[in-house]
Amino acid sequence: MSKYWSQLTRTLDPYVPGEQPKIDGLIKLNTNENPYPPSPKVVEAIRGFDTDRLRLYPDPNSDALKQTLATYYQVANNQVFVGNGSDEVLGLAFMAFFKQDKPLLFPDISYSFYPVYCGLFEIDYQCLPLNDRFEIDVDDYATANGGIIFPNPNAPTGRALGLATIRRLLQQNTESVVVVDEAYIDFGGESAIALVDEFPNLLVVQTFSKSRSLAGSRVGFAIGSAELIDGLERVKNSFNSYPLDAYASVAAIAAVQDQAYFEQARDKIIASRQWLDQELSQLGFEVLPSAANFIFAKHPAHDAAALYKGLRERKILVRYFNKPRIDQHLRITIGTQHEVEALVTALKQIL
Amino acid sequence: MSKYWSQLTRTLDPYVPGEQPKIDGLIKLNTNENPYPPSPKVVEAIRGFDTDRLRLYPDPNSDALKQTLATYYQVANNQVFVGNGSDEVLGLAFMAFFKQDKPLLFPDISYSFYPVYCGLFEIDYQCLPLNDRFEIDVDDYATANGGIIFPNPNAPTGRALGLATIRRLLQQNTESVVVVDEAYIDFGGESAIALVDEFPNLLVVQTFSKSRSLAGSRVGFAIGSAELIDGLERVKNSFNSYPLDAYASVAAIAAVQDQAYFEQARDKIIASRQWLDQELSQLGFEVLPSAANFIFAKHPAHDAAALYKGLRERKILVRYFNKPRIDQHLRITIGTQHEVEALVTALKQIL
Repeated sequence: MSKYWSQLTRTLDPYVPGEQPKIDGLIKLNTNENPYPPSPKVVEAIRGFDTDRLRLYPDPNSDALKQTLATYYQVANNQVFVGNGSDEVLGLAFMAFFKQDKPLLFPDISYSFYPVYCGLFEIDYQCLPLNDRFEIDVDDYATANGGIIFPNPNAPTGRALGLATIRRLLQQNTESVVVVDEAYIDFGGESAIALVDEFPNLLVVQTFSKSRSLAGSRVGFAIGSAELIDGLERVKNSFNSYPLDAYASVAAIAAVQDQAYFEQARDKIIASRQWLDQELSQLGFEVLPSAANFIFAKHPAHDAAALYKGLRERKILVRYFNKPRIDQHLRITIGTQHEVEALVTALKQIL
Repeated sequence: MSKYWSQLTRTLDPYVPGEQPKIDGLIKLNTNENPYPPSPKVVEAIRGFDTDRLRLYPDPNSDALKQTLATYYQVANNQVFVGNGSDEVLGLAFMAFFKQDKPLLFPDISYSFYPVYCGLFEIDYQCLPLNDRFEIDVDDYATANGGIIFPNPNAPTGRALGLATIRRLLQQNTESVVVVDEAYIDFGGESAIALVDEFPNLLVVQTFSKSRSLAGSRVGFAIGSAELIDGLERVKNSFNSYPLDAYASVAAIAAVQDQAYFEQARDKIIASRQWLDQELSQLGFEVLPSAANFIFAKHPAHDAAALYKGLRERKILVRYFNKPRIDQHLRITIGTQHEVEALVTALKQIL
């Protein structure tokens, strides 16, 4: 605490990201990174970039990347917003849409950055509990609100809502903005991008950090109506004109353009997820059905914190949340097949 | 305007960055970029980066870059903050320190992003006029305030305050944070980093976009007391955990480590600035003494907007501000010697 901090700064409860430890031989299944490297076309694009151009500012509007995403998702260029990772995109969306008199609504078990943004931007919020099967019941959200946000698939549960359910939510909620945070959508969910032309208050946020293997590049984006995108641009241009550096754009464009590689890596992850789900179930774990690149599981006879510790001693890092309702679960990122096999071997030793 | 925007979003008056036009053969002297490419060591570091690692999140704390800067500026690691360009660093500093009951003070002619941040973060501010020679009089700032910020050298004037003057300001102002925005300091000013251990309320902000030729990489930093840096970290970790991508850190570290290249490029720019100052004076311009990589000048007999237009027709882009007190000035970035010679030739034709 310092007398020079603003009152706001004193009250903050910052987000704590998953660890990025530097341990040799560690199997890192804690931050939902992709176990496969970016596409060879990404590498080629990076190698081909003229480093002399680094002396110049990048395009503040990232028009080339927006155009690439607009073509890929079949929307207009002015329906695309890009930012420095989806965390930045979400932060700007909180300012642009959720600073309202009524509270923002989101699930009690969800991305733990949401209440942090609310603290930073002084936004009132209300957490709606997931049901006992850790599902979102969209009818709970049919109440007065200043906005709605949820991840789909949800994190850390991995459960996804179908498009028909999201449409029902949107039909019930036309007066405030609904943000669907689709960080994990490519691993098995149905994207709500299909609904943006129908609902002007729908904003879909995605990232290059997971399915595109570019967590190191910091690129996120949002797709929605032109009026929502315009609101985001106003806030962005009041904070940072040039959030995407030159390499980030080049890498992201090349990643979108290599559909075959994207599908191949995704399919391998889905296959390993299915394998891991089966193996964990056989070991007695209760595994939630996952549409993401991670699995959320608990063992009825073994304490989650102890399992986390036992795995860590065997140089396998998973994510443990010491929080109400989920302190007996582990969130396990789907690594390579080799990595998830090593995880199962280690768990067999521990159990 | 959209009914879905927050009230805040409706009131914003976003920053407008200098143009980044894509015109072949354009001489671009409008955004104070460095005319020389980044150091060959930067290129080497980028080429040597293992692209497979892009699948992983970067170090959220950018410890390697902080360590490099701490060593270079002879401060402790916890006195260094890094962000996605100095614009982001400034934005976070406004939240961390300037959200106060009393108004923020800054010069009337200054970086035009300051009032924009105030709009976004709902900070009250007061502009203090520069004197007739476009100088900051620090005694004007000896008044109740919620913080003080100014660029040194100032932009777009190019005028610098000496260290003794900044010390006087700090001695008069111990109860609120003073941010010295040193984007252009390496081109001839004295850095206030020398004063951070003496004044716990001093934050010095710098960038890799100008003297380090890395505008395309988006890296800025701040140096100050550990308590101020801690405040910035709290705000940063409530907004975006990973603002610097993997390439940006690698490039910035290599740039700091090549002192010889840095000095060589800087000295060439200073020599061209001196040459341009003389030439413009001979053409009848009134040129302010500049400690930056640009010159701020007016011609008593020629309208600045017309000169801007005439130069643009000759494919030379400079910056014109249609604002009170400075609408008869042009801000001209120091390019290569060849580029500033082309500018003088064009001006001779126009005059």
